[in-house]
Order: sequence, then C-alpha cells, then structure tokens
Amino acid sequence: MPDAVALLTEAAALAEAALEARLPAATVEPARLHAAMRYAIFAGGKRLRPALVLLACRAVGGADAAAAPGLAAVELLHTYTLVHDDLPAMDDDDLRRGRPTCHKAFDEATAILAGDALQTAAFAAAAELGAEAVLVLARDTGSLGVVGGQQDDLDAEGKPPDAALLERIHRRKTAALIRASCELGALAGRATPAQRAALAAYGEALGLAFQIADDVLDVTATAATLGKTPGKDAAQGKLTYVAVHGLDAARAEGARQARLAQESLVPFGGRGAALAELARFVVERSS
Amino acid sequence: MPDAVALLTEAAALAEAALEARLPAATVEPARLHAAMRYAIFAGGKRLRPALVLLACRAVGGADAAAAPGLAAVELLHTYTLVHDDLPAMDDDDLRRGRPTCHKAFDEATAILAGDALQTAAFAAAAELGAEAVLVLARDTGSLGVVGGQQDDLDAEGKPPDAALLERIHRRKTAALIRASCELGALAGRATPAQRAALAAYGEALGLAFQIADDVLDVTATAATLGKTPGKDAAQGKLTYVAVHGLDAARAEGARQARLAQESLVPFGGRGAALAELARFVVERSS
Repeated sequence: MPDAVALLTEAAALAEAALEARLPAATVEPARLHAAMRYAIFAGGKRLRPALVLLACRAVGGADAAAAPGLAAVELLHTYTLVHDDLPAMDDDDLRRGRPTCHKAFDEATAILAGDALQTAAFAAAAELGAEAVLVLARDTGSLGVVGGQQDDLDAEGKPPDAALLERIHRRKTAALIRASCELGALAGRATPAQRAALAAYGEALGLAFQIADDVLDVTATAATLGKTPGKDAAQGKLTYVAVHGLDAARAEGARQARLAQESLVPFGGRGAALAELARFVVERSS
Repeated sequence: MPDAVALLTEAAALAEAALEARLPAATVEPARLHAAMRYAIFAGGKRLRPALVLLACRAVGGADAAAAPGLAAVELLHTYTLVHDDLPAMDDDDLRRGRPTCHKAFDEATAILAGDALQTAAFAAAAELGAEAVLVLARDTGSLGVVGGQQDDLDAEGKPPDAALLERIHRRKTAALIRASCELGALAGRATPAQRAALAAYGEALGLAFQIADDVLDVTATAATLGKTPGKDAAQGKLTYVAVHGLDAARAEGARQARLAQESLVPFGGRGAALAELARFVVERSS
C-alpha cells in the first residue's frame, strides 16, 4: 500500500530537479527577477501537481524521466498564479507557505514580472512534451480556466452565496490545473485516449475534493499548520463551499469527490493505487 | 514597390480575424475578464508584429493561412506585456493608443488577470504552429527576453546612463519579440534553417531600429500623433538611446540598424521587398 507522504516526498525531489534544470541561476541578469522567481518556486510547497503528473505517467506505464518537463510545467504555472493572486490588487496576502509573499519579499513590480516569467517558463516546459501538452495547459489555465476562476472569485466577494457560481469557481480555479496535471502525465506516458479521459476525470474530481478541503481548512486550521493566513476567506467575504453549504456538507462533499476520483482509477488496477492514495490524503490532510 | 502602410493595413485585417477566432466573446463568463482582454487587443495598434509574421512567412513561400496562428500569438503576447507594463506598480501609464489603459478602463486586478490570460492565449496560438514555435516564443519573451528587459528597464530608472545596459534592454524588451515574430513566420512557412536564421537576423536589427525610433519619438512627437504620453521616458528617468547617446546619434543608429535589417534580406531577392519596406518605415514613422 503506497503512502501519500512518501509519494509526495519522492515527487517533490523529482520536481525540484526538474525545476532547477529549467530556471536560470539567481546570479543571471536580471538577478532580482531570477531571485524572485526562485523565491516563489523553491518555497517548500506540497508539489501536489507535479506528483499527479508523475503518478499519472506511471499509471499508464510511462518512465519518470518522460514526465519531468510536465512536473516543472504544472508547478511553474501554479506558482505564477499564487504570486499574482497574492498581489495587493488581488487577494492582498502577506503570508504564503509560512513566508512573506513575493511582493512583500521583493516589490510589486518584480512580483508581477516574476509571475509573468514563471508562466512563460511553464509553457516552455510543456512544449518539451509537445504541442498537445501546451494546448491542454493553456485550455485549463487561461480565461476559461484558472485565470477565469480567479476573476470570478474576486467578482464574487461580498455577494450572496451562489452554489452554481461556487462550483464554476472551484472547477476553474482549482480543478482545471489539477486535471491538466493528470492529462500532462498521461501525454508524457503515451496514454491511450481512454486512459487519458479516465485520468482527466480523476483529476477533475480530485481537484474539487482538494478545493473543498481547502475551504474547510480555512475555517478549522491554524496559521502554524496552514502556512498562510487562516480565516482570510471568511474575512474577505469569499465564496467558499463552507459559506454556501456549511462545514458538515463540505466535509461530506469532499469525501464524495475523493471517492469519485478513486472510482475513475478502476481501469488501471494496481497501477492506480498511488493516485487513489493521494485522493484519500487530499481530503484528510491538515495543511 | 510595396507600400508599408498598405502592408500594415493588410496584415492588420488578417490579424483582427486571427485574434477574433481565438478570443472568447465579451459575453462569455467571466464577461468582465473577456471584455478587458478584448479592450486591450482591439485597440487599433499598428500590428507590426503580426505583419512581420505574415511577411516572413510569405518571404519563404508560405501561405497566409499557415501564418494565422502566428499573427495572433505575437499580438496576444505583445498586448499582455503592454497591459502589465502600464500598471501602477510598473510604468503607471494612463494612456495607451489614445485611450485609457486597461487598468484605468477596468480595474487593477482585472488588468493583471487579462494580461495573464492574454499570455496564456498567446501560447495556445503558438502551439497551433507546433512545439518549436512555443519554444521560440517562450525563449524570447520570458526572464531572458521581454520580461527580463522590462525588469532591467525598471531597475535602470534614475541611474546614470549605461550604454551596455541600454543595449541589453533594447535587445530583450523590444528586439526579442520582433525577432521571434520573424521566426514564427519562418516556421509557419517551413523555412530552411538558413532562411530562418536570416529572418531572425533581420528581426533583431529591425527591433533595435524600432526601439531607437520609439526613444526618438518620445522626445519629438506630440500626444496626438503618438497616442500615448510623450516625454514620459525622460520624466521617469528612463534609460533611452537619446538619453545615453543624444538625438542625432539615435537617428543615425536607427538608420544603420534598418540598413542591417535590409541587408539580411538579400537571400530572399524580390520576396524580401515587403520586409525591406517595413524596415524603412519603422525608422521614418511619426507615431
């Protein structure tokens, strides 16, 4: 039986190497920009998305080395969205992964540019997997994906609870990139179309489970375990699953989506065990 | 003899169509985000970069239709950098192409996200030309290209004139995307490696000529002809060719780079005439 923490640790080590190989050194000019990009990237995140690329690739029999560009691509993409979301004009957050956010540690202009260049680097990495990987990543992270979800999220602040809008935000802002991570792993491992579709369905459900768990943690966790400011969503009047449906319903829906994710893995037999374990972990984690 | 204005007009019409086909309607949710992306894109710019993609493709015998994704890609990329450069934390500009900048017409968060999604759309469009086009565009627009040039530009504000830094900024901030535009056209037209290299050399020289002409216009043009605030560079203590070398030397170097660009076109014979005319136009334009 695989262990989620061990899987994440293994994937994180491969992700660090894949990222290190694709980012200029902090001494390369413009040094301030490269330092900011590295500050944001090498901050000890969970590396969940790279783990999904790796495990999806393994689930279809692909080699770890084939997945490496995908590991880098999804983490570069994810990190750029965090850097921009934290900006004063957006969520205005001072703390991220237990450290000052990028614009606090550097300055606002540098953080905007570091985020921009991280997105560029993400697509360069995806292109190593081929044009189809770029199209998948772009589809799920642009105005109809992650960026669109963030815009909806900002526009929804302080508005009455809206279950349909909430689900759209969760699907776009969080589930889309998690699904794309699984699809990039599928592409890296040369999955069949049916395998790729199954992994996409897994990713979509896992992404919803993950975001609901995040909403739950925002009201139940402490800053020490969370590594960012808890209670922030409620204070900002954010639309969250807990705000719309309550804490108990949130926990139940998170568990249901995790089960749906696991059911998508049936075609993979034992090769899907690691991804199934990640789904369990995502809803039971405490940070 | 081709006429630059007619060429730009023709390319602009093709660019509008290519962009329209790749951007969601302003009614698609999040409507505010899509409205902001369209506001920034459909603002009547010169469309110089799409024209370069088109004419580079034609120079190697490629069909206009093959170049269409490239026309969209470079203009989406260029526009994202303008939206972000205009932000209060960056150049803090209120006027762009004669209209309020994106963050003035909408708000800062929406402008950041619109820029982000325009970059994503740029790479989706480039991917239609294949993975190599994505790699070229990423190389020339990331931390070692356009974004790096903007960081250098900001860091250089108010510092003593530095000719070496100035050239690095010009090469990265402006010439890199203009060169990439020529290379995307070459890729779309299935250029030989030698043809691609010649078009890249043309683009690099043209880009330097273009930026020097911009620096000249900042001190000689009026807001009415320029469509943005003139004298802004000098007021902000920006490092410009005029500030470092003076107006006469700037005009001479712009003309020299335009000639270098034209000399790179010798291998194309008559097929290079349109690109040669653009090089003439770039240094002689008044806006």
